[in-house]
Amino acid sequence: MIHSMTYQEYIAANKDAFEAKFFDSLRIPSVSAVEAHKPDMKRAADWFMQRFIEMGLQAELIPTTGHHLVYAESPAVPGAPVVLAYGHYDVQPPDPLGLWKSPPFEPTVRDGNVYARGATDDKGQFLTHVFAAESHLKTTENLPFQIKFIVEGEEECGGEGIYDFLHSEAGKKKLACDCLLVSDTSMFAPGQPTITYGLRGILAMELFLTGPNRDLHSGTFGGSVFNPAIALTKIMSQLIGDNGMVKIPGFYDDVLPLSERETTQFAVLPFSDDDFFAKIGLEKGFGEPGFSTNERRWARPTFDINGITTGYQGEGSKTIVPSKASAKFTCRLVPDQDPIKIADSVREYIATLIPPGISWKLEYQHGAPGMRLNLDESRFVPAMSLALEETFARPPVFTREGGSIPIVTDFNQILGAEVLLVGWGQDDDALHSPNEKFSLASFHNGIRASARFMAEMTKRTHRS
Amino acid sequence: MIHSMTYQEYIAANKDAFEAKFFDSLRIPSVSAVEAHKPDMKRAADWFMQRFIEMGLQAELIPTTGHHLVYAESPAVPGAPVVLAYGHYDVQPPDPLGLWKSPPFEPTVRDGNVYARGATDDKGQFLTHVFAAESHLKTTENLPFQIKFIVEGEEECGGEGIYDFLHSEAGKKKLACDCLLVSDTSMFAPGQPTITYGLRGILAMELFLTGPNRDLHSGTFGGSVFNPAIALTKIMSQLIGDNGMVKIPGFYDDVLPLSERETTQFAVLPFSDDDFFAKIGLEKGFGEPGFSTNERRWARPTFDINGITTGYQGEGSKTIVPSKASAKFTCRLVPDQDPIKIADSVREYIATLIPPGISWKLEYQHGAPGMRLNLDESRFVPAMSLALEETFARPPVFTREGGSIPIVTDFNQILGAEVLLVGWGQDDDALHSPNEKFSLASFHNGIRASARFMAEMTKRTHRS
Repeated sequence: MIHSMTYQEYIAANKDAFEAKFFDSLRIPSVSAVEAHKPDMKRAADWFMQRFIEMGLQAELIPTTGHHLVYAESPAVPGAPVVLAYGHYDVQPPDPLGLWKSPPFEPTVRDGNVYARGATDDKGQFLTHVFAAESHLKTTENLPFQIKFIVEGEEECGGEGIYDFLHSEAGKKKLACDCLLVSDTSMFAPGQPTITYGLRGILAMELFLTGPNRDLHSGTFGGSVFNPAIALTKIMSQLIGDNGMVKIPGFYDDVLPLSERETTQFAVLPFSDDDFFAKIGLEKGFGEPGFSTNERRWARPTFDINGITTGYQGEGSKTIVPSKASAKFTCRLVPDQDPIKIADSVREYIATLIPPGISWKLEYQHGAPGMRLNLDESRFVPAMSLALEETFARPPVFTREGGSIPIVTDFNQILGAEVLLVGWGQDDDALHSPNEKFSLASFHNGIRASARFMAEMTKRTHRS
Repeated sequence: MIHSMTYQEYIAANKDAFEAKFFDSLRIPSVSAVEAHKPDMKRAADWFMQRFIEMGLQAELIPTTGHHLVYAESPAVPGAPVVLAYGHYDVQPPDPLGLWKSPPFEPTVRDGNVYARGATDDKGQFLTHVFAAESHLKTTENLPFQIKFIVEGEEECGGEGIYDFLHSEAGKKKLACDCLLVSDTSMFAPGQPTITYGLRGILAMELFLTGPNRDLHSGTFGGSVFNPAIALTKIMSQLIGDNGMVKIPGFYDDVLPLSERETTQFAVLPFSDDDFFAKIGLEKGFGEPGFSTNERRWARPTFDINGITTGYQGEGSKTIVPSKASAKFTCRLVPDQDPIKIADSVREYIATLIPPGISWKLEYQHGAPGMRLNLDESRFVPAMSLALEETFARPPVFTREGGSIPIVTDFNQILGAEVLLVGWGQDDDALHSPNEKFSLASFHNGIRASARFMAEMTKRTHRS
């Protein structure tokens, strides 16, 4: 402990050290979905363990059926709130590799941003809370509230481990908290602090079709069997209409409509369709009729094909009727859609679309419902608003987000914890894409704001 | 020369030697479509050169814009017919590798068949004519007709080299012939000699779609842009109807209907739908209404998707909106469909199907018209019929074939040569698939029949 320093001075003195540690974490290719990266997953978990131990926290690796959870805590403080910061140390696969300007697992700084897989999703964002806590723990004898950390390694591949733990008695006890602090979302605009009060849920499935028992010569057999690749296009094209509306029967039945307040809140945000789409190389957007771009992204459910595999994928042509064809697809869900119920509808609907001579298997990969926070009743939003306003010199805006953090809904429901989603990312951070980046200014401001929020917790605890 | 031997005795004495040479050729992975195999292509061309030189033929490698042609000839005999045997030394890619029971380029004998990529398509089939000619050349002082060989290396990837050569003045002169002998087709049944008097043509294209300029997070962007993978399923599914009829406008306009004679000829062939489809793991077939399986395969045009690539192809899920999606597809054509005209129709039709926010490119990969021989006017069919009947102890049947040998139509049209398609393959040889095989009995009978045909040429030449 360095009692002669304030936490703010500690943050200023450790700017380079925080950055160096952050970059270290990015060098570990912790791709949870790919079996070959299993040793890297363990290295990443160990790396976070080391951080927590250095900060003086009680830390442990928790085994799961998949990748480890990393858990850490400061001593309990009776009567004071418990803040649990959640993050994930796993990253998306870096494919397609050829499109990266610098290697995905060698952090490279260009124009004030660090480029690497996992930079914004979620290593950089999560570490702001780790370093914020470090700045308090290293400058204060006793933290007057309890801080806990939980870092999972399966956020990008279904999150089974944390799900099981959260639903176990031991897990419920260990993770018990009043406030769940999560940075895995974006700021509405650069420099504009943002509290995200809603998330979409998700349903991920994969459809596998089989026709003939091997790839066939399209000359000898073409025209006499149903081609599974054609079958796949026929089935998948019927899950969504040409107008962008999902055609799965009953899909919209349980969708909570947007309130008038939300429609207004979204409409007044400084947002330009032209700028938004220009950034991704498009002239304009496309989607469900009658909704704005942000309504479509944040508050309406969707259907997307994420990948299709069938037949010959190499150079040139190969004149075959493929034996197999498969499609990965996801629906983004909104309250009160139930992923299990939607998955059942998908299964029933696809059963009616299978052509003759095609056998099929539909795999449920993972699912989670969406969530929406009641802003008027929040206990922690005021403290976070203050911290954000002081750090960024402007008050936060309140938005929803189109992405899914499946476990967040569970924390909310099982632990009764209030979820505070405060993102430091930008919309053009290219998360899940080649050339993922994270702004270093966001990284350092995030540390400052999180530390300021913890200071506010401390004050509020002293007062109580 | 071994004048004390008949060509039949030479064939019997060289049974093992022919097999050993055939297996040597299979060990060369001459995959023409894959750039990395370029050195193997040269090795394969050199291997055939060596065979022709050993037989005492005048042989040469002819450079093309792609892979070499191998050409060989015996001395010209004024007034006697010229027989040109055509084959290809290139093979299809062996993917998917995991499904091969023995390595694709290590010939392995099981149950009287040799398993390897290229065994039936086309190294084994073509070599029957090489070894047949060898048996005459090694046992006769002067061949009383001229035999020529042309072996190309681009049959599986468009055949540009031989096309250019055949259309050049030098090529027309060198390849001039009265009879083109081709074994790249199948026997109608094991032991049933077969003369194929018609081939389908082909049109191979690839459609490339681009939406956003990078893969997008399906949470942040899903619902607000047109997903190129969805666009691809919507476009491709509209090229063919649920009933198996192609929906490209004008597609059937120039199709020559089957004659009554053909319908009858096909109907009386010993053919069981149940057996045919059971071999490929299907209960029954599917195709254009109103046609039998053999009519669909041989005499009706088709549309097939050969491969689709889009988005994430690895393990697990990746929640993206892909930037790109592409599909390889082929149409099998029948006389008198024109591949260029059909390609134009495809382009015009697809232009009407492109959704908003999707840019596209349609690539013409290769094309060739179909062909049909006039059996009643043939000059060489009687000699071949006799050779087949004497070798196999039963007369040949006359069939058409669904596959395409694009260059065959050109030989027919440009050189005025009569095309004799005499296949030694079987329908279950798995050409273009894993575990491609060729029957060793077919291989040896092929050599005998081809040599017998050449003997008949010799007799007919003497008589003239």
